[in-house]
Amino acid sequence: MAKHIVVIPGDGIGEEITAGAVKVLQKIDEVCHIGLTFEKKPAGGTAYDLCGSPLPEDTIEAAKKADAILFGAVGGDKWDNVDPKLRPEQAVLGLRKALGLYVNLRPVKVPEVLAEYSPLKPDIVTGTDVLIVRELVGGIYFGDRCESEIHNGVERAWDLENYSVPEVQRISTFAMKAAQKRRHKVTSVDKANVLATSRLWRRTVIDVAKDYPDIDLNHFYVDNCAMQLALNPKQFDVIVTSNLFGDILSDEAAVLGGSIGMMPSASIGEMTSLYEPIHGSAPDIAGQGIANPCATILSAAMLLRYSLDEDVAADKIEKAVDAALADGWRTPDLYKEGFKKADTQKMTDVIISKIQ
Amino acid sequence: MAKHIVVIPGDGIGEEITAGAVKVLQKIDEVCHIGLTFEKKPAGGTAYDLCGSPLPEDTIEAAKKADAILFGAVGGDKWDNVDPKLRPEQAVLGLRKALGLYVNLRPVKVPEVLAEYSPLKPDIVTGTDVLIVRELVGGIYFGDRCESEIHNGVERAWDLENYSVPEVQRISTFAMKAAQKRRHKVTSVDKANVLATSRLWRRTVIDVAKDYPDIDLNHFYVDNCAMQLALNPKQFDVIVTSNLFGDILSDEAAVLGGSIGMMPSASIGEMTSLYEPIHGSAPDIAGQGIANPCATILSAAMLLRYSLDEDVAADKIEKAVDAALADGWRTPDLYKEGFKKADTQKMTDVIISKIQ
Ligand SMILES: CC(C)[C@H](C(=O)O)[C@@H](O)C(=O)O
Ligand SMILES: CC(C)[C@H](C(=O)O)[C@@H](O)C(=O)O
Repeated sequence: MAKHIVVIPGDGIGEEITAGAVKVLQKIDEVCHIGLTFEKKPAGGTAYDLCGSPLPEDTIEAAKKADAILFGAVGGDKWDNVDPKLRPEQAVLGLRKALGLYVNLRPVKVPEVLAEYSPLKPDIVTGTDVLIVRELVGGIYFGDRCESEIHNGVERAWDLENYSVPEVQRISTFAMKAAQKRRHKVTSVDKANVLATSRLWRRTVIDVAKDYPDIDLNHFYVDNCAMQLALNPKQFDVIVTSNLFGDILSDEAAVLGGSIGMMPSASIGEMTSLYEPIHGSAPDIAGQGIANPCATILSAAMLLRYSLDEDVAADKIEKAVDAALADGWRTPDLYKEGFKKADTQKMTDVIISKIQ
Repeated sequence: MAKHIVVIPGDGIGEEITAGAVKVLQKIDEVCHIGLTFEKKPAGGTAYDLCGSPLPEDTIEAAKKADAILFGAVGGDKWDNVDPKLRPEQAVLGLRKALGLYVNLRPVKVPEVLAEYSPLKPDIVTGTDVLIVRELVGGIYFGDRCESEIHNGVERAWDLENYSVPEVQRISTFAMKAAQKRRHKVTSVDKANVLATSRLWRRTVIDVAKDYPDIDLNHFYVDNCAMQLALNPKQFDVIVTSNLFGDILSDEAAVLGGSIGMMPSASIGEMTSLYEPIHGSAPDIAGQGIANPCATILSAAMLLRYSLDEDVAADKIEKAVDAALADGWRTPDLYKEGFKKADTQKMTDVIISKIQ
């Protein structure tokens, strides 16, 4: 049975990097006979320019029917003065909500070959292998809010942080199951010494963990976690946290891990899921053909693993990326003397040539 | 006129480190003739054990009348099962609110001698000099909250993030003035692409900045700031942000800067201000006389500078700490071969001997 992938390149370098990843998927399809079909849809600033909305109905409809979505990146200075409700990032938030993408998975893995790109000292970072499990459709991102009101005689704005027991059960169950396939350790991150939401979060996670006696669960305050990620990232296996804390911690972890040009992500829903590199749309280098396609290619590998259950195909892609790096190929963002320089096209071709 | 300092040692190593800092202040008083008087008051778990409250009325009253407060640290596993409202950290939150300590100042300065203790590579971190200005009595820390309610048929909890225009004006004015005494650059950190509070924050900061044409203002999203602190901390001069984002970013910045045993802080109010090291109460080493007193001693220097306008005295302390380090003295947390090992007492004595 054919598997239908909706490709949403978005803005900036989105077009180039998703094109590279699609080529890799096509090659894998030849090798593994998955039967992939592709369909391209607009989103972000490009879509806004095209039809006045960063997330056209037609894109949402296609995404809903897809077996999986491959997403590039959205955004750019060009749309800085557009009404906030129509800005490119609304495409991201809108898709998460419309598709119910309740988990954001952000693996940060630092093999020796990438450690030199980390701002951290090599002995601290080499060997890091953490999976951040971020709740993605709840919390303060989607709570009630007020842009402006008069309260006690002065103007104020507010946003409601909120979590329900079922929301926390769902995300922590996901984290427990993910840890069972890894090193059996879950760190739940909250601010339970201050926030009521965090106290509900913590007691619910503790409750869920009772069904997972093989999992070693601990709890960190978010400020301490921000410290520990820098001091000793190797201590972590799976980190599970709220939408807002996850936004901050997963970006911190990503840069500590070295090049953000190498970091994939998955946003998982009940019906379909979306895969995207964590780096942005990089308008400054868009159209030059020099963007690093690896994060998007590795996102495509996650797509095969999580949405299509094609673990063998996913492994092949990940190994091909490793092999290209081991051979000394580097895109400009990672290039140093002594290596072989590759543009987007070349890097993609090298990776394809390594697929066995 | 005498200047009255209330000393609140708190729990764990609090007693040892504040004792060291008081000795340094007494020495400075001999040299600079400030006329310091000291009074000790309980808070934290120790106070809870003593009289059933982590923040006795008597401590609050004394603090209110003080010219400045020198605080140690509170907390410890021992009080993990105490009712949340009576836990040691309530002393911290309670003092902030009772005294209106609306600014938390967290300088992170990384001279060459400390760079080796940073988890970051030396070329990235050496020379970092950032001042984080965190709003401390507003935001989600002190908004309404609900521990448990039934909403749409399920149990949920919530916390209200909220900021008023005057609150943001006050903290951003403080940041602008601080930057005028430094490198004239302010980075305001928010999440304006998602939160209404952040949008009010941003437009208010922009408004306040109009009165400070000599200040170069820019805006970072909190997730990006968490990245940039690790990638290039030297780009920052003054960072101004909300209570919650400040909690996370200032701890991240502190560890990236090297030893948290060296990091002071100030919490400034209209009437009085409180000074404390950023490290915790370290119950595991309490009573052994080996804690690093430097962060508390440097907090005492901030006290002289910000509360008593004794810049010369503050400089003398900071220079004495630098001189002790330059001479090779290290407490166990920073000790490496080739250095001279000092316990709390010895480090304090060396610093005192360097005061000129
Ligand atoms: C674009 C923005 C709304 C988004 C978020 O905050 O979730 C981004 O930072 C991310 O992490 O995917
Ligand atoms: C103890 C805790 C409530 C406090 C905070 O979150 O403000 C601490 O982390 C701090 O930063 O001083």
